[in-house]
Amino acid sequence: MDIHAYMQEVGQNARHASRQMATVTAAQKNAALLAIAERINAQREDLKAKNQEDLVRGRANGLSDAMIDRLEFTDANLDQMIEGLKQVAALADPIGEITDMSFRPSGIQLGKMRVPLGVIGIIYESRPNVTIEAASLCIKSGNATILRGGSEAIASNQALAQCIKEALQQTHLNENAVQVIETTDRACVGELITMDKYVDVIVPRGGKSLIERISKDARVPVIKHLDGICHVYIDDEADPKKAIDIAINSKTHRYGVCNAMETLLINDGVADIMLPVLAAKFAEKGVELRGCEKTALYIDCVAATEADWNEEYLAPILSIKVVDSMEDAIVHINHYGSHHTDNIVTENYTKARQFLAAVDSSSVMINASTRFADGFEYGLGAEIGISTDKIHARGPVGLEGLTSQKYVVFGDGHIRT
Amino acid sequence: MDIHAYMQEVGQNARHASRQMATVTAAQKNAALLAIAERINAQREDLKAKNQEDLVRGRANGLSDAMIDRLEFTDANLDQMIEGLKQVAALADPIGEITDMSFRPSGIQLGKMRVPLGVIGIIYESRPNVTIEAASLCIKSGNATILRGGSEAIASNQALAQCIKEALQQTHLNENAVQVIETTDRACVGELITMDKYVDVIVPRGGKSLIERISKDARVPVIKHLDGICHVYIDDEADPKKAIDIAINSKTHRYGVCNAMETLLINDGVADIMLPVLAAKFAEKGVELRGCEKTALYIDCVAATEADWNEEYLAPILSIKVVDSMEDAIVHINHYGSHHTDNIVTENYTKARQFLAAVDSSSVMINASTRFADGFEYGLGAEIGISTDKIHARGPVGLEGLTSQKYVVFGDGHIRT
Repeated sequence: MDIHAYMQEVGQNARHASRQMATVTAAQKNAALLAIAERINAQREDLKAKNQEDLVRGRANGLSDAMIDRLEFTDANLDQMIEGLKQVAALADPIGEITDMSFRPSGIQLGKMRVPLGVIGIIYESRPNVTIEAASLCIKSGNATILRGGSEAIASNQALAQCIKEALQQTHLNENAVQVIETTDRACVGELITMDKYVDVIVPRGGKSLIERISKDARVPVIKHLDGICHVYIDDEADPKKAIDIAINSKTHRYGVCNAMETLLINDGVADIMLPVLAAKFAEKGVELRGCEKTALYIDCVAATEADWNEEYLAPILSIKVVDSMEDAIVHINHYGSHHTDNIVTENYTKARQFLAAVDSSSVMINASTRFADGFEYGLGAEIGISTDKIHARGPVGLEGLTSQKYVVFGDGHIRT
Repeated sequence: MDIHAYMQEVGQNARHASRQMATVTAAQKNAALLAIAERINAQREDLKAKNQEDLVRGRANGLSDAMIDRLEFTDANLDQMIEGLKQVAALADPIGEITDMSFRPSGIQLGKMRVPLGVIGIIYESRPNVTIEAASLCIKSGNATILRGGSEAIASNQALAQCIKEALQQTHLNENAVQVIETTDRACVGELITMDKYVDVIVPRGGKSLIERISKDARVPVIKHLDGICHVYIDDEADPKKAIDIAINSKTHRYGVCNAMETLLINDGVADIMLPVLAAKFAEKGVELRGCEKTALYIDCVAATEADWNEEYLAPILSIKVVDSMEDAIVHINHYGSHHTDNIVTENYTKARQFLAAVDSSSVMINASTRFADGFEYGLGAEIGISTDKIHARGPVGLEGLTSQKYVVFGDGHIRT
């Protein structure tokens, strides 16, 4: 197989499909989404059979139980795909929305119209449900998409691709609006991220090393999320109950998620009283504590090293640093954080405002658990990822992050004099 | 001079300054802008003396008269810089604006706050007034900026840099908020566009080859404008007077600008009547016409080649193509255009709506001259450039294009359950 030629054709097909997708109605897009859901429902047994191929190969290749779990089509996760498609169909169509419409002194009427990005390349690892999530968000936002899933899930992804293709045909949309790469050849990724003529943006989903590699080599803009080193800063004017609830929830609600707290910063003025209370609660949950020198004055903990402030544990481990002031907390967050989600707990109005302005993260919170940083909690309906970039989309990325805007001008024969 | 070390220091200074700039008040930023204006006014003779160094060297190096013109500090263009600074000071501060604030079902209050991008690198060619324009927009939008002007203007730019630095000091802002690269060594550009740790976005201003080179090598996002191949499509249901006015104005109001029409598309149904009228008017203005085969049936013209449809003339030359339908016009525009500005002239409501939705350009117009695509005409107050990208900023880029948004969450001890 000539990978370059194959990917060029995929790219051309996608560009062509994107022109059509840009102008189809919300009703057509929703019909396609519901048709995909129907097909998944009707073809459960076929999908499971194809999925078995991946599971058998995966077990033979020594995939971990956790990986096999993520790969497996159960009725429950097929139901989840179906439910997800229905939810995206129920969302408002972002395309064509015109805002900021006003007459300019020249007499022209100027506004901004929301439009699709065009062609979105999505590169992801083993979970095949991403195929459906990504396809549904791209269809709804009027984009064409090229999907490149993990090689472990190739048979499952191809089976889902077939459902999508048939549904697109049935609802008279261009079947190339969603293309799932048919080969596991890694050269496809290199082609995909460099064909800027056909691809408008790349969204990598997966581990940090995958995303770093893609960002480094891409010649197409990348919407990326590298890591989530989230902080809670407990101010000396924090309400103690709120501080404890938020710290415990931010760390222990779920460990393996990007919006979990990884470092707790606490003002020296309240560290002596609050750290022992927090330590007892974290001990109950089995969280290992790694503290700075001052932390060790108040509680038993492992000594934190410089590396701890840069670490996304994704595990029951928490680093703790005692700081002298909110300013020190802000400096720490902007330096060591990953610009994902950071929170202050305080009752002081002025400090809350200062923290909000100064912390350079995609979500900045006052008196709320970092766990709220999520597309569903933010009301986006669904998310393709959480961007820690500053350009284009920042924070949870839903339909709007997959769109752009163009200026529209209505005249009546207006010329410039 | 160790260019790598020098640029790293510039980058670190800029990052540090950007943290401070993010939280300074509108009053402080405006005071700095007005202080720069005062200094330029007070130091006219010094500035002209420094400028003379560039002019003398430029003439010795054989710069064209046009280049020398663009380089020279006259009282008129010093006045223009002063006026530009006052205008930017008078614009509303975009930073800190919170929009879309609403309560979520969980009880958290969620909104989006407008924030600076951080550090903006701007690379431009000979005109030193860009130094002041770029600095003023970056200061007002709360960013730090690193400016790299053309080597022809090094003395002029350093003199302006000194005015800016003194004004920043006088108004108690970080003097590194605006840094003008002190050396003409080209290696600085390579450093600037790859130090993604310190630079958030690059804005290149200049010729297409400069911008292509920068885009190719950058490891930092680029807000760019490659070229302006703008179209006017005259529909068979166009009002003839509007069509003629718009076509003539779009082409002949100014030739060397990116929003000038380069290709006229005309529906075959009206080509026989309208082309001779248009040809006569273009002849009066001295515009050379290059037409497709059908065009040649109706008027005298040079035979257009494939290359003409891809050409930004920036000159009194116009390519003309007769098309069978609006659909053909849209296909031509999306294929050959540069996604800058394209216009339909029609009285037909349905076609106007279809054109608006289907044309994939940063400005899409109905019955208006392409010459309106401009930051001042759009009410942005000033522009750093016109983006033909889809990501982040699209079309004329003013203060808002130099900002991003972050999510802000107000809670009252809210935790996720």
